[in-house]
Amino acid sequence: MKLTRKRLAHIVFESDDAASKRFDVVLLVAILGSVTIAILDSVQALHNAYGTVFYLLEWSFTVLFTIEYLLRVWLSRRTAGYVFSFYGIVDLLAILPTYLSLVVANSHFLAVVRALRFLRVLRVLKLGRYLREAQVLTDALYNSRLKIQVFLGSVVTIVLVMGTVMFFIEGPESGFTSIPTAMYWAIVTLTTVGYGDISPATPLGQLMASLIMLLGYAIIAVPTGIVTSEISASAKREKQGDRACHTCHAMGHDKDAYHCKYCGTRL
Amino acid sequence: MKLTRKRLAHIVFESDDAASKRFDVVLLVAILGSVTIAILDSVQALHNAYGTVFYLLEWSFTVLFTIEYLLRVWLSRRTAGYVFSFYGIVDLLAILPTYLSLVVANSHFLAVVRALRFLRVLRVLKLGRYLREAQVLTDALYNSRLKIQVFLGSVVTIVLVMGTVMFFIEGPESGFTSIPTAMYWAIVTLTTVGYGDISPATPLGQLMASLIMLLGYAIIAVPTGIVTSEISASAKREKQGDRACHTCHAMGHDKDAYHCKYCGTRL
Amino acid sequence: MKLTRKRLAHIVFESDDAASKRFDVVLLVAILGSVTIAILDSVQALHNAYGTVFYLLEWSFTVLFTIEYLLRVWLSRRTAGYVFSFYGIVDLLAILPTYLSLVVANSHFLAVVRALRFLRVLRVLKLGRYLREAQVLTDALYNSRLKIQVFLGSVVTIVLVMGTVMFFIEGPESGFTSIPTAMYWAIVTLTTVGYGDISPATPLGQLMASLIMLLGYAIIAVPTGIVTSEISASAKREKQGDRACHTCHAMGHDKDAYHCKYCGTRL
Amino acid sequence: MKLTRKRLAHIVFESDDAASKRFDVVLLVAILGSVTIAILDSVQALHNAYGTVFYLLEWSFTVLFTIEYLLRVWLSRRTAGYVFSFYGIVDLLAILPTYLSLVVANSHFLAVVRALRFLRVLRVLKLGRYLREAQVLTDALYNSRLKIQVFLGSVVTIVLVMGTVMFFIEGPESGFTSIPTAMYWAIVTLTTVGYGDISPATPLGQLMASLIMLLGYAIIAVPTGIVTSEISASAKREKQGDRACHTCHAMGHDKDAYHCKYCGTRL
Repeated sequence: MKLTRKRLAHIVFESDDAASKRFDVVLLVAILGSVTIAILDSVQALHNAYGTVFYLLEWSFTVLFTIEYLLRVWLSRRTAGYVFSFYGIVDLLAILPTYLSLVVANSHFLAVVRALRFLRVLRVLKLGRYLREAQVLTDALYNSRLKIQVFLGSVVTIVLVMGTVMFFIEGPESGFTSIPTAMYWAIVTLTTVGYGDISPATPLGQLMASLIMLLGYAIIAVPTGIVTSEISASAKREKQGDRACHTCHAMGHDKDAYHCKYCGTRL
Repeated sequence: MKLTRKRLAHIVFESDDAASKRFDVVLLVAILGSVTIAILDSVQALHNAYGTVFYLLEWSFTVLFTIEYLLRVWLSRRTAGYVFSFYGIVDLLAILPTYLSLVVANSHFLAVVRALRFLRVLRVLKLGRYLREAQVLTDALYNSRLKIQVFLGSVVTIVLVMGTVMFFIEGPESGFTSIPTAMYWAIVTLTTVGYGDISPATPLGQLMASLIMLLGYAIIAVPTGIVTSEISASAKREKQGDRACHTCHAMGHDKDAYHCKYCGTRL
Repeated sequence: MKLTRKRLAHIVFESDDAASKRFDVVLLVAILGSVTIAILDSVQALHNAYGTVFYLLEWSFTVLFTIEYLLRVWLSRRTAGYVFSFYGIVDLLAILPTYLSLVVANSHFLAVVRALRFLRVLRVLKLGRYLREAQVLTDALYNSRLKIQVFLGSVVTIVLVMGTVMFFIEGPESGFTSIPTAMYWAIVTLTTVGYGDISPATPLGQLMASLIMLLGYAIIAVPTGIVTSEISASAKREKQGDRACHTCHAMGHDKDAYHCKYCGTRL
Repeated sequence: MKLTRKRLAHIVFESDDAASKRFDVVLLVAILGSVTIAILDSVQALHNAYGTVFYLLEWSFTVLFTIEYLLRVWLSRRTAGYVFSFYGIVDLLAILPTYLSLVVANSHFLAVVRALRFLRVLRVLKLGRYLREAQVLTDALYNSRLKIQVFLGSVVTIVLVMGTVMFFIEGPESGFTSIPTAMYWAIVTLTTVGYGDISPATPLGQLMASLIMLLGYAIIAVPTGIVTSEISASAKREKQGDRACHTCHAMGHDKDAYHCKYCGTRL
């Protein structure tokens, strides 16, 4: 088969025959490799030992990705459409940091943004199933967005009030040096993370902290309840099938329905 | 339009035309600004650099809120009704700290109580939806209040007993200096916050602590279960009425159903 | 009314008229007071300042409780039945520590066991409602006891294996001085408490720790799921009403049932 | 009864009469004993005091398990089938470490792998019930495996991105020495473990950390929701069949129902 421009575009943009799948797999490996190298290079000991190797590999991957980017720009039917699309920008961000590192020190670490490119090539794996599941989760979160906003609003209010109160009670001696710091502490406590870099030292402060903890312990139930309720509901919706009534064409009938709930016709 | 007293009262108390909405937005911005300034002013570095600016802004906002407060007192039909209402007291608390700071040092930080005034002007945003969602959450919490009280009662008993036991096992060397301190530690542990400012050092103490942790891990399931169960139930109540089919008496019909889904009879 | 032995027994053991309620309230206050004093006395500063007052109050309460205990022993129909019952033992444990403190130092702190006596006098408050709610929670836990045992078995296995592995990876330098200590660390981590008194220092140890954390994060969902599912089910059972079929006397019909599910009779 | 090879194989491999049950109980105790000794021996103080006793017991158990292993190899119908089965490998791993410790120091601690052998002899206890419950949990996890994979994928992405960002913001001064370390910190924070061995020191870092915490607090709801929803669904499936009434077609009848609860028709 001759490698026409059309054929090349098919290989680069699609993923439904041997050649295009091979292209995606190579890309997947290259992305994985370049992200791994950026991570390893940040370890001082490894940087000292293999810095040059990492440097060369980093540039090899960048050249590879640059060629791929230019190829995509050239092959896409509407160049501007690709360049300003989500993936176009991600592809560009994936090669920029390395070039930038010639000017700004350390900026090549930003190359981990390449991890976002995974999304593009994940299609090689049979991802249909995963996308459907992700859809259920996203739907559950979307449907409960109002409840979640109300919840986050309450959390922010609690953090603001408790942070200020603790700033007054404890003061700079125990590490509550300012209201923002005290608010940071309140979040650390409310979410039950509890680093211990800042912790109350006075009896009154410990009493207030105990209240915040019990509060945090109790309200963690709220987002859980919201999301659980939504997931259950959407799992049930999924079971509802997509039968349409022959008479009125209405859908959304329960799995156990024998008659249309709108017009009474036998389904 | 002439600015009669009636018109002014409408602008201040309502939020349904251009002028009254503009009033609410200005108030919203002023509250946000004054809270932000109180927070920033508590940071020593910022206080040193911009202390005077913060001081002036603080007083400007306070004068503004004072005028608004007096306006509300003057305009309200029943003055005492407003002054002793929830919002009347919040409005007063929002201006008092600054005047108080002339006498008592640092008390102007208390001005973050202004954050509570957000509640009043939140109506500018289209909050109907949020209030409904908040209602579902509040209902769920209200319906499970007895279960939550039983749960909190158990937690307090566990904390009391475990705190005393750990005070005996560990003693002051590991930081368990008194029963209240040991109870504070028990709450920190049971809620899985785990600061680490106090932690058991003896093998027996670590064994007991492990038991408390597993207990805390297990009983976090209880409030979650209570709230989730309530939210699910109220979501279902909202979706389905309690209509029964006249022919087959089946229930569980969706709110939008016109015919029984089992036998097709008109509901 | 003459204070016969029968009348006295009624006052002490029941809680359904003015005199017996007053007895319970006095007892409640005495218990609360004595527990509070044991707690406050454990604070060194308060002990130094008010030690003598605490000592006298402690003995007053103990004498009071001793009289009450002897009264119960004398009044109960079957003396042995009371003495060896749950409450009989609790009542004894509530007075023993103070007498014991004449011999053994510090043992009077054990008097906080008196807190358990609250259970006895809680009947004064209108506790019917609370007991029913507690019943739902206890039922939910009881019904899921097998699932919870399986879950705890898995947790113990994970802790055993992970503790041993971390003991090998990290060794005594990072605080993993023995397998029991490493198991303690594993529980601290798995339950997301995370004191930080012991934490992995080597890259491999941090990798293993990350796995345990993600595992702990995931399996916290299991007890929650178990309890939530049970609470939902028992809430539904409660709604089922207690109608009996006229023909076959069977019970357990759903709220929306029109016919007996066993014999088909109209309910 | 003569101890033929067939009879011996029955005792070793089955668990349904007195002799074979006794064999399993002895094995259970031996496993428990040897695991306990491995754990205790790792405590330096106990090792110094009772090292020789532990050493002798360790070898006794190992000799016992070796005899048992050889017996199983000899008695099993298909030797290779047993040797390469899951339990065959576990049985071998249970004796290897002690022999290995003659060559490699400390390797005898690996003998805790014997804990896995519990699985084999748990059948002595009446475990049918537990296995059924474990089945429900395993099913719930299996049915939600896709959702859980999507969830873990999101968590890994968040950890990768947040780790890199924090490595840039905080740098080595606060302990964020490399991207892997920063990713370890991100996991510690996201799972709300919060050791505090590494914690942000700059205001910007604390702001980012607060976001991660709130995120972690929110997304813990997702696995909980997934598992809860599955457990509820499978509990309902277990209770109700999918029979429909012949007359009114209604579903949702309890497994023990003989008549339709809505119209009374024989199911």
